[in-house]
Amino acid sequence: METVSTNKSHGGTQGVYTHASDATGTDMTFSVFVPPHEKGAALPVLWYLSGLTCTHANVTEKGEYRAACAEHGIIFVAPDTSPRGDDVPDKDQYDLGKGAGFYVDATEAPWAGNYRMKTYVEEELPGLIGDIFPADMERQSIMGHSMGGHGALTIGLRHADRFRSISAFSPIVSPLSCSWGQEALRLYLGDDEDAWRAHDASAMIADGARHPHLRVDQGTDDQFLEEQLKTGFLRDVCKELGQDLELNLRAGYDHSYYFISTFMAEHVGWHAERLKEGRR
Amino acid sequence: METVSTNKSHGGTQGVYTHASDATGTDMTFSVFVPPHEKGAALPVLWYLSGLTCTHANVTEKGEYRAACAEHGIIFVAPDTSPRGDDVPDKDQYDLGKGAGFYVDATEAPWAGNYRMKTYVEEELPGLIGDIFPADMERQSIMGHSMGGHGALTIGLRHADRFRSISAFSPIVSPLSCSWGQEALRLYLGDDEDAWRAHDASAMIADGARHPHLRVDQGTDDQFLEEQLKTGFLRDVCKELGQDLELNLRAGYDHSYYFISTFMAEHVGWHAERLKEGRR
Repeated sequence: METVSTNKSHGGTQGVYTHASDATGTDMTFSVFVPPHEKGAALPVLWYLSGLTCTHANVTEKGEYRAACAEHGIIFVAPDTSPRGDDVPDKDQYDLGKGAGFYVDATEAPWAGNYRMKTYVEEELPGLIGDIFPADMERQSIMGHSMGGHGALTIGLRHADRFRSISAFSPIVSPLSCSWGQEALRLYLGDDEDAWRAHDASAMIADGARHPHLRVDQGTDDQFLEEQLKTGFLRDVCKELGQDLELNLRAGYDHSYYFISTFMAEHVGWHAERLKEGRR
Repeated sequence: METVSTNKSHGGTQGVYTHASDATGTDMTFSVFVPPHEKGAALPVLWYLSGLTCTHANVTEKGEYRAACAEHGIIFVAPDTSPRGDDVPDKDQYDLGKGAGFYVDATEAPWAGNYRMKTYVEEELPGLIGDIFPADMERQSIMGHSMGGHGALTIGLRHADRFRSISAFSPIVSPLSCSWGQEALRLYLGDDEDAWRAHDASAMIADGARHPHLRVDQGTDDQFLEEQLKTGFLRDVCKELGQDLELNLRAGYDHSYYFISTFMAEHVGWHAERLKEGRR
């Protein structure tokens, strides 16, 4: 692993790192904020998965999470959203290919070689974080935005024992039910829509997945709400099947980091409540 | 004035606007955050002047000021750092020309036509802010970073009656004494160094300027501290001449927005204390 940059911030260290990933076969860049802590401390980890077109940098620069993470003593990890590099297949669309990995392992050519963001985020990067940073990997939570909200919900539900809490800003709650998700899952996973259900939070809950701490914040003026995000799908399936969901509709907010940054400290604090038990 | 964008954030509105400037003869873009407020309210105004290479966007995206401005009910205004446009003279250097207006009115060709950031920030833009936003122009303070710290100090000292408090992150405290300042002032104002003194905070204080509320925060690991910023010049002249200066040296912090964002809420709160008296 190579250090791209470190900057002191809010008493801790905001770092950006790069490493050769086995999962994707490419170099991958990610950011980690380590809050001020005592020597030998083992700190809980909050994962943040980003949305379409983003890298680690968007939330790192605009997310306004460091003050809250410093206050609560939480490590904040922000991976990239896809493999990168000249040899990596791409589409000339913002919602497919680079910047749009959708947190799945592709099975279809030419994507299957590099587009393995599920394995990268679920297995490879956690190994690195646990090895290198002062992390207590028994205390993890996960959150994300938009496509990364989809990632946080699906990965969190798949590993309900690993993640103590799951939250999302403006998530794609059902890729099966919107064009962003349909196009991406067909491209990466092929035509068999049954194979898509394991990557659709609403379908996962319909198929039995459960988590005790699930939260969504959604802006009511989000330009993607009706066509792509469809928060109502998740609300309805949770209500029908008895999955608790803390759903906060935020009047007048849109899809941008101006929305996320407004409620970031609240999300970090909400996760912190669930991460403080069982401190090593 | 045209609205480029507005986004709800922290209960208020983060806007970006553009207008045809008489001062610079170009279109100028700036950002304004208006916090949540009651109808008819007249809110104090905090000016933020940015550093070399920046536009309004850097602090707007990375400055982390909105939570504090919402809490204290303060309007936050961020102008650009120079005129822009294809017809505007420029140098192929990051520290001269576009992005490097140094908050002076140029007297030398070819700069004199457009490079009039002093008049723009001191006169034209305040007129627009007072006309269009719910601002109480009897309650203003000013702050800035690096070249914008120089701008805040010099403009604040020049208008000590207008600005209730002046603060700066990592300011250029004496353009006469560093290569950034010397090159820029020679270019814009000509060879007569006496004419430069009115644009050098340390020289202004030596020449008699005073302000009751002056604050500087400076990171000790700032890569520009020794060669360009020279905080010690200002500290010494203030001490020698009896100008109060709250100087906070911040161990381990650098020149970046990771530093600024760490102490932004503190600066906003410090200005808020001085802006709350005499509320309309």
